[in-house]
Formats: sequence, structure tokens, C-alpha cells
Amino acid sequence: MLKINRRQFNYALAVALGSVPFRDVHSQTTVRVNGRRIMDHILALAEFGKNPQGGVSRVAYSDADKQGREYVLGLMRAAKLDVSIDAAGNLIGRRAGSASGSLPLLIGSHVDSVPEGGNYDGVVGSIGAIEVAQTLAENSVVLRHPLEVVIFQNEEGGLIGSRAMDGELTEKELDLVSRSGKTIREGIKFIGGDVSKVSEVRRRKGDIAAYLELHIEQGGTLDSEKINIGVVEGIVGINWWDVTIEGFANHAGTTAMNNRQDALLAGAKFIQAVNRVVTSVPGRQVGTVGRITALPGAPNVIPGKVVLSLELRDLDAAKIDMLFEKIKVEAEKIAAESKTKFDFKEINVNIPAPTDPQVRSLIGDAARELGLTTKSLPSGAGHDAQDMARLGPAGMIFVPSVGGISHSPREFCRPEDIANGANVLLHTLLKLDRL
Amino acid sequence: MLKINRRQFNYALAVALGSVPFRDVHSQTTVRVNGRRIMDHILALAEFGKNPQGGVSRVAYSDADKQGREYVLGLMRAAKLDVSIDAAGNLIGRRAGSASGSLPLLIGSHVDSVPEGGNYDGVVGSIGAIEVAQTLAENSVVLRHPLEVVIFQNEEGGLIGSRAMDGELTEKELDLVSRSGKTIREGIKFIGGDVSKVSEVRRRKGDIAAYLELHIEQGGTLDSEKINIGVVEGIVGINWWDVTIEGFANHAGTTAMNNRQDALLAGAKFIQAVNRVVTSVPGRQVGTVGRITALPGAPNVIPGKVVLSLELRDLDAAKIDMLFEKIKVEAEKIAAESKTKFDFKEINVNIPAPTDPQVRSLIGDAARELGLTTKSLPSGAGHDAQDMARLGPAGMIFVPSVGGISHSPREFCRPEDIANGANVLLHTLLKLDRL
Repeated sequence: MLKINRRQFNYALAVALGSVPFRDVHSQTTVRVNGRRIMDHILALAEFGKNPQGGVSRVAYSDADKQGREYVLGLMRAAKLDVSIDAAGNLIGRRAGSASGSLPLLIGSHVDSVPEGGNYDGVVGSIGAIEVAQTLAENSVVLRHPLEVVIFQNEEGGLIGSRAMDGELTEKELDLVSRSGKTIREGIKFIGGDVSKVSEVRRRKGDIAAYLELHIEQGGTLDSEKINIGVVEGIVGINWWDVTIEGFANHAGTTAMNNRQDALLAGAKFIQAVNRVVTSVPGRQVGTVGRITALPGAPNVIPGKVVLSLELRDLDAAKIDMLFEKIKVEAEKIAAESKTKFDFKEINVNIPAPTDPQVRSLIGDAARELGLTTKSLPSGAGHDAQDMARLGPAGMIFVPSVGGISHSPREFCRPEDIANGANVLLHTLLKLDRL
Repeated sequence: MLKINRRQFNYALAVALGSVPFRDVHSQTTVRVNGRRIMDHILALAEFGKNPQGGVSRVAYSDADKQGREYVLGLMRAAKLDVSIDAAGNLIGRRAGSASGSLPLLIGSHVDSVPEGGNYDGVVGSIGAIEVAQTLAENSVVLRHPLEVVIFQNEEGGLIGSRAMDGELTEKELDLVSRSGKTIREGIKFIGGDVSKVSEVRRRKGDIAAYLELHIEQGGTLDSEKINIGVVEGIVGINWWDVTIEGFANHAGTTAMNNRQDALLAGAKFIQAVNRVVTSVPGRQVGTVGRITALPGAPNVIPGKVVLSLELRDLDAAKIDMLFEKIKVEAEKIAAESKTKFDFKEINVNIPAPTDPQVRSLIGDAARELGLTTKSLPSGAGHDAQDMARLGPAGMIFVPSVGGISHSPREFCRPEDIANGANVLLHTLLKLDRL
């Protein structure tokens, strides 16, 4: 006699009544990823580019990156995926769907790291996506839509793989030197892509059914509030300027305090002004000065020139503009009182990428059905999902980062949170497939 | 009939009355340097290490430095000096005195420059001293004391030549790499010294009758107040610390503003605190943050560590200590409010070097007799004179730097001011010789 529980019974009834398509009642509702296997794979991948002080340096196009990708390709094959490397160097694992002509459902992330990074950023979503595919295979669940597990290349160095896929990657960019020392062009060749055909990987709006990405939060909200799952509202816009402050370099011993045009003193006031402006209005916007150079840079010379970076992030592009205008007003005041000159050069703008409301809703449903708590929050970090959002409905699932630490050897994500996240990824995928 | 003016008559009378020793009435009182010749020599020296954008890069031990020194050696020979290179690489030009057993009177400066420096720092005093010797020779003035014109090597890289002469130069320092790329040991050999005998150049306290140095002010006081001659009260003490600020590096997009330990924001507050403390008390003290490094130094990472230089200068060592204590108190406050940690590492201390009161008085007399205005002021910059002050009475004569600019291609000193300075050097020397 077949024993089924109430949920399975209800599902079978729904199938019988024609309200959901029939596939495999058992696997559709009670199927779970293998959390232990995910951890084994994460730990094995952590060997590639492992640092003595913990964490990894697996920057895109390095030997460690190449070796890590080969390991991941093996996992994809073991998950019964039909594996290939696209012309841009992204790893693609395909699984056929049952409904002919359906658009593909994409899930994935990246396995490259920042220098001296951690073992979870990108990895949790990559290994999680492969685990979902393996779980489907082991449970003989066939989706209606084709499934593609995508491991994007060089996320940390500018979302290169996903930007190739949405057609944003320019010819000029290919000649930029990446952190590996190789140009992106050289890097793509190194990892098995074919730069001459990179335009062929481009997909158009409407080419995908949906994109889902599991990722660690990289901030401390879920951890401090003890929430299991973050439902990402969108990826914030990021505006980056280089700010040049011109003063006058002079002898530190012979130039009276009231006769200085100290570009670093002006820079110090500017850094405080950025913090003051960004924290002066409510909200989750952030503003950072992360890089600074003072020239000529000798203890006994008053700095005549300072170049520093200014980065502003928010889900609302208008708010970024408003904050920047306020900061410029502050800079004018500082320039006038310190006899210096400020110049702002826009280096990069990533416009905010909202996730799809229906996908967000399904993620919330899946989490709740798994007995997990959820919270909606923005992603302060950039992700490949922001590029995939240009091609179709996109969603992101966050799991807690302990202490909010990321891009650090101290980055940590608990095994149970990773398993929870992968199960939410699995069940959101199943829900999307039923739409 | 011999025609003499009132001053010459008075001098002759004084000699007759035995109140001043007789040598050559005419040359002693009316003798003047050749200002035109000084400028010709300064312009000729400016060819060695000349930069396209103006000024020179004639860092010690470079080819340009070596060639410039050879040119200067030629000038010293033309000034009838008995020329040698001491074991430390200093150029020495000797002229015998008439009184046997007298201690030498030293005059001089340096001809090496900072990278992208100007044509006057060190050069005015070097060419001026040689011109004084040549003027004495041309006017057949024989001093009682032996005269030594000293062109110290590598002043800009740490007063190396004068510190060899006062015995401070250590064996360990010889292996430091200078701006030329050569170690000091290699550099000394390159310019004709003999490192194995460097200890032989050492002189002891009481070995010299006096030391006089003519120099451009390198600050704007004389120029802005339209004073001809600065009578230097002393060379300020210079204390230099490296300040390390430890915060916590984290993701600039995902770390909320109220959850940051931003070492650069703390550094910005510190730079302002230094300025506030140094300008909070009356006086001519200066405080400078000239160098800063923020790590990891990426626009999208909150700086976890900042290293910056702190330099304080004053004629009074106690005042430097007092300012430093106040700055440390401010740093503690900043550390507490920003969850960072400050560490101060003392890198170098040059104690203040007061000039000799009698030498100062003679400089003032000489200037007034030449119809020049004077002002007493400290030297905010280090000079070889601070080392010579350890060996005997030392004095410095400043001439105006236009706009107070120094260590810059825009450094400029008017020809008439240079001639005035050289004449004050000459007549102070004559007065010292009569003591």
C-alpha cells in the first residue's frame, strides 16, 4: 500500500482536478537538497586558491580560477547536466524540459573571488544551483522548462560573464587588464572561451523564462535579526566618481599653517562631509570613500593633490542623484575655505535593478512552506542577477552572512542556512516551472 | 692723494687706535661680492639635472648630481681654494689663515636637490660661499682663521654629509637606499668618497671656530613682509610618527552606515584634529599629514586600515611634546566613537638646533651696515647648519623666497636678494674673523 501524507494527497487531488500538471507528486513536494553534499562540495572548491590565513584568492583567469572551474564542471556532469563553456567563458549546464518550445529557466552564480576573499560569496549560489539540478535528477523530476545552470565568469571583476550574456560587454573592455594580470580578452581564452564569438552568447529580453540566484547576504541584516531567508527587492544602483582635489604642494616646515593650500586637509573634510550627507536622510543608502592617494606623498611635504573615490549606492537612482548634489555643495564650501579646487569625474554607473514582483512572491511562498522566516531587503552589492533582470523576470534569495562579513577570509555562512537557501531555490524553481 | 670716505676714515682711525686689527682697510669695509657672477654660476649649475618643465632633479648620487659637483669643484678651484673630496663625499675648499693654530671658519651649503626641485635651495648658499672665497682672493683679503668652503653631500636625503662630519652617520644607515636608487654606501663611492674611511671626517665639538650658511627662506615671511635678510634663530625640531589606524574592512555596498569601522573616516577626523590642535595655540609651530595609505584601497571596500604620517615642528621641543599629547587625546576620542584603534610609531626625531646668539648678532650688524632690513625667524626646514651647530657656533642667513615656494620648479629668489645675502655672508665672516 502506498502511504502518502496530507500534502501529497492534496497535491494528487489538485492534479486529478486538473489544477496542476502531473509529474511526480512525491518529489515535487517533499524533495529536499542534500545539505551535507553541498558542504562537501564547498569545502572541496575552497582548496583552489586557498590562502594560508584562511579564505581564497581565486581571481578570475588565475590558475586557481581555472582549476576551480574544472572541479565545478565535474560536479555539473555528476548532476547529469549537459555541460558546455560558452564563447564568453561561462559554464553552462543544460537539462531538457518536457514542454517543447518553453523558454529556459536559469539558476546560477559565480566561483571567482576577490583577492583574499572568502569561501561563500558566489560559491553558495553556484554549488547550490548544481545541487538543485542533482536533486532533480536523483528524484527524477522533469521540469516543463529547460533548465540551465550558469556559472558566470569574472563576476568580481565587473560582471563580465553576465554582461556578455546581456550584450553589454564592449570590445574596448576586453582589453582592460583584470586582477589576474591578463586582459579580459586573454582571460576568456585562458578559461576556454572564444573571444571572436563572444557576441553569439548575447540573449535578448524575453529569451529566458526567469533567472534565480542564491547568494549570501554580505551584510548583517539577516544575521542580526535572525531571519532565515532574504527576499531581495533589487540590486542597488552604484555610482562611482573619482574626485580630484587640487591644492598646492609646499614645504611642510616652512609654510605657515595659515598659508597652506593642503589638498589632504580638504580631502579629510570631504570624507567627513560624505558621511554626514549620506547619514542625514533616512533609508538604507550607503556612501563610501574607499581609495585615496595624496601627492607627492612625503611626510615633509604638504599634499598638493589628492585623488579619492566616491561611491554611492541605493535602490533609488533619484536618491543617489540627490545625495551627490548635496555632496557637491559641501565640496564647494570646503574648496572655498581651503583654497583648493574639486573636480568630479564619473567613472561608472550601474543603474538600480529591481527584481520581479512575482518571483519575489514565489520565493516568499517557498520559504514559508519550508517553515522559514523571511525579510525583504535590497542587495547592496552588485550581482550577475542585475544583468539577467534585463532579459527576463529575476529573483535573488539571500542567506545570512555571520556578522555581515564578506570579501574577507572571515566570511562565513552556516551549513543549515546554506541548505535552507538551496531548498528555497529548488522550490521557487518548481513554482516558476508551474506558472 | 688718497680719497677715502667717512667709514673708511673711521676704520683707519680705529686701526690706528688699536681697537681693530689692521689688514686691508679698503677690502675689509667696501668689498662686495659680484652678484652678476653668482647668477651666471647659478644658471650654469641649473643645467645639471634640468627638467623640461623647469627646475632640476639633481638627487644625491645621480649622474646629474655628480656632474653638478664637478662643475662646482671647478668654481672652487677658480676661487683659489685648495680643493678635496672628503671620505664622506663632501667637497671641501680650503684657504689658509694668517694666524697659526686658529680653528677654521666654515661656510657652505649643498647642491643636491629633491626630485623636481628648484634652482635655489642649497645652491644659493653653495655658490654664495664660493663667491665669498673668490671675492676674498680677488681683494687679497687674508683672514686670520683658515677658511673652509664645504659643499655637503646629500642634504635632501637626510643631511648625510653633515651628519658624517658630526659623527652621527651610522654604519646601518649606509645601507639605506637613497632616491637615486643607490645605497648611501654606493652613492658615497660614486661621488668620490671612501666609505671605509668615513669615520675619519668626524669633527668634535670645539673643532671649528664657527659655521655660517646662506640659504633661501623656503617660507613666505621675508617675501610678504619685504625684509631683505632673515637672521635665523635656530632650526626647528622635527618629530615624525607613522600613525596606524585599524578599523575593519568590509563590503561598501552591504555594510550599513551605522555598522562600519571605517579606518579612513577615522583618519579624516584625525587629519582635521591635527590641524585644529596645531592652530589652537599661538606661535609658529606647524603640523602636517603628508602621506596616507588606505587599505585595501578599492572604491567598493570600506578601508580597514590606514597608515598616515604625522610631522610636528617647532623651535621648542617641549611645545612639540605638548602638541603631540593633545593630538593623542583627540585620537583616543576618535577611536572610541568610530570603533577603531590608533597606534603611534615614532620614526624620527630631530631635536631643535638653536643658532649661536653672538653669530646672530654679527649677522644683524653686517646686514644693517649694508643698509639691509632684518628679521629674526626660525628655520622650519632642516639644514646642514643644525649638525654644524653641534661642533661650534653656527649661524644662518636667509634671503626671501618669492611666494614662499620651495622644493618646486617654481622656487625663485631674486638676484638682488642673492647678492645681498652673499654680502651679509661675507661681512659676517669678516666680523667672525675679527673676534
